[in-house]
Amino acid sequence: MLDVCLLGTAGMLPLPNRWLTSCLMRFNGEGLLIDCGEGTQVALREAGFSPNPISIICLTHYHADHVSGLPGFLLSMGNSDRTEPVTIIGPKGLERVVNSLRVIAPELPFEIRLHEITEPEDTIEIMGYHIHAFKVNHNVLCYGYSIEIPRKGRFNVDAAKEMGIPIQLWNLLQKGQNVEFEGKTYTPDMVMGAARKGIKVTYCTDTRPTTSLVDGAKDSDLLICEGMYAEEEKLAKAKKNKHMTFYEAAKVAKDANVSKLWLTHFSPSMTGHKRYMKAVCDIFPQAELGEDGKFLELDFAEE
Amino acid sequence: MLDVCLLGTAGMLPLPNRWLTSCLMRFNGEGLLIDCGEGTQVALREAGFSPNPISIICLTHYHADHVSGLPGFLLSMGNSDRTEPVTIIGPKGLERVVNSLRVIAPELPFEIRLHEITEPEDTIEIMGYHIHAFKVNHNVLCYGYSIEIPRKGRFNVDAAKEMGIPIQLWNLLQKGQNVEFEGKTYTPDMVMGAARKGIKVTYCTDTRPTTSLVDGAKDSDLLICEGMYAEEEKLAKAKKNKHMTFYEAAKVAKDANVSKLWLTHFSPSMTGHKRYMKAVCDIFPQAELGEDGKFLELDFAEE
Repeated sequence: MLDVCLLGTAGMLPLPNRWLTSCLMRFNGEGLLIDCGEGTQVALREAGFSPNPISIICLTHYHADHVSGLPGFLLSMGNSDRTEPVTIIGPKGLERVVNSLRVIAPELPFEIRLHEITEPEDTIEIMGYHIHAFKVNHNVLCYGYSIEIPRKGRFNVDAAKEMGIPIQLWNLLQKGQNVEFEGKTYTPDMVMGAARKGIKVTYCTDTRPTTSLVDGAKDSDLLICEGMYAEEEKLAKAKKNKHMTFYEAAKVAKDANVSKLWLTHFSPSMTGHKRYMKAVCDIFPQAELGEDGKFLELDFAEE
Repeated sequence: MLDVCLLGTAGMLPLPNRWLTSCLMRFNGEGLLIDCGEGTQVALREAGFSPNPISIICLTHYHADHVSGLPGFLLSMGNSDRTEPVTIIGPKGLERVVNSLRVIAPELPFEIRLHEITEPEDTIEIMGYHIHAFKVNHNVLCYGYSIEIPRKGRFNVDAAKEMGIPIQLWNLLQKGQNVEFEGKTYTPDMVMGAARKGIKVTYCTDTRPTTSLVDGAKDSDLLICEGMYAEEEKLAKAKKNKHMTFYEAAKVAKDANVSKLWLTHFSPSMTGHKRYMKAVCDIFPQAELGEDGKFLELDFAEE
């Protein structure tokens, strides 16, 4: 089970009652945070979570509204007695940005591990998360992230019995280990079916629509995507500032064949967000407005 | 007239419904902000103000809860089309801290002027504010600030008439200028009485009680002072962490002969703040709990 909480939905600057866009995911007791603007630690608490169990922080890019909360967040993790390492993943420049911001958080009771993305795509396997970063198209270097929880194939009991594999070895084979027993070698592929569909959530902001985003988000259970502007006449502004309109995000969701779309990263000038949703749903019916604290539990599909 | 708004009252970390301690003052259209932790820009908006007219930012010290909001605050000032310079005042290390934090706010449409305090005391005259910084006693270099709006002496009309000073020169003398007229020199001291009591507000956090604080706050109309702990049994913790209890702050207020005390910078572990106030008021009756958005207008005393 993966759960997802959209902690904030504002772009550019934090507003009273609207935190900057960031997202918490939790799997198997380990938290993963994407983006950490000013106030994200408060948004996290308001949503009912604690910073302590967050082991991974992914940064999309280094505009202040996506990273300004990092030093305070790390300090609060320290104040909550975290001692396990925290891995921070981000575009080129990660070390410089994190170290500069840590001028006000120089001492932490845990190790920080940095994973700098240097290619247009990167894949990181960490704590059960399969993280895929893909470069998008903003006015600074920026990445989207798809977070997958892979699911193994089914254990074929009949095959295991037929091959006479002792029952005490089944669990090891299920865990993917080769086993030697009484002079014979058993391998997982003998008894495990093909990998089944896992859970996939894609988070992307800030960008223009790109094929890398459509490809990266392909078949996601949930796409959390920026929609900086809703007003039709702001398309030119979206193009200029390298952002998206609601309708462009809906088109991406449709092309990527995702199951659900949450819009976020709204311009501070936007009001009356709801009235635009009919037109959005005409393009992609499973579109919803993001809201601070919006929460979803995703489980493996029943078979 | 000087007005004062306590934007937040939390110490250490911002909480839902309690912003980090900082203070806005406004005089003659120019704003002065003391400390800028994570979320201060939101606290400012919630209190009904805008970042644009703030010309001066005073930093007490470089712990994250007092400065982590600076890059976002500066960006929001820029987004509100400010082009006039902003002066930032702070302890030694100011340039390093501001420049490091600006890794995520490198481009601003206004000039930043830095005033680094290098002595145990410093005085800055800027935009009608008389700012007095005094070193206090925390576990890192830290300053308190007293902000004064000075008031000139009274113009002595009788003396001016007696000396036959032409009436068209009176205004210049009132403004403090020497005037040459028809071969004679007139100086302000001929007609101006001694400076009268101005307005004085002192802000101090984080520190143990010190004589520099008592001296710095002397006769203030308002002392905004940290009270990290309220529970009597936390005195040892206050001493260890170089903070103050409510009662120590009250004793400072009494010794400094201030007119009013606002307590702030409460520990995140504190609950039920009010129940401690009777004991506080036994020491200093004009003590009040600070609250986010607490506001006061101060005018020159009537005579």
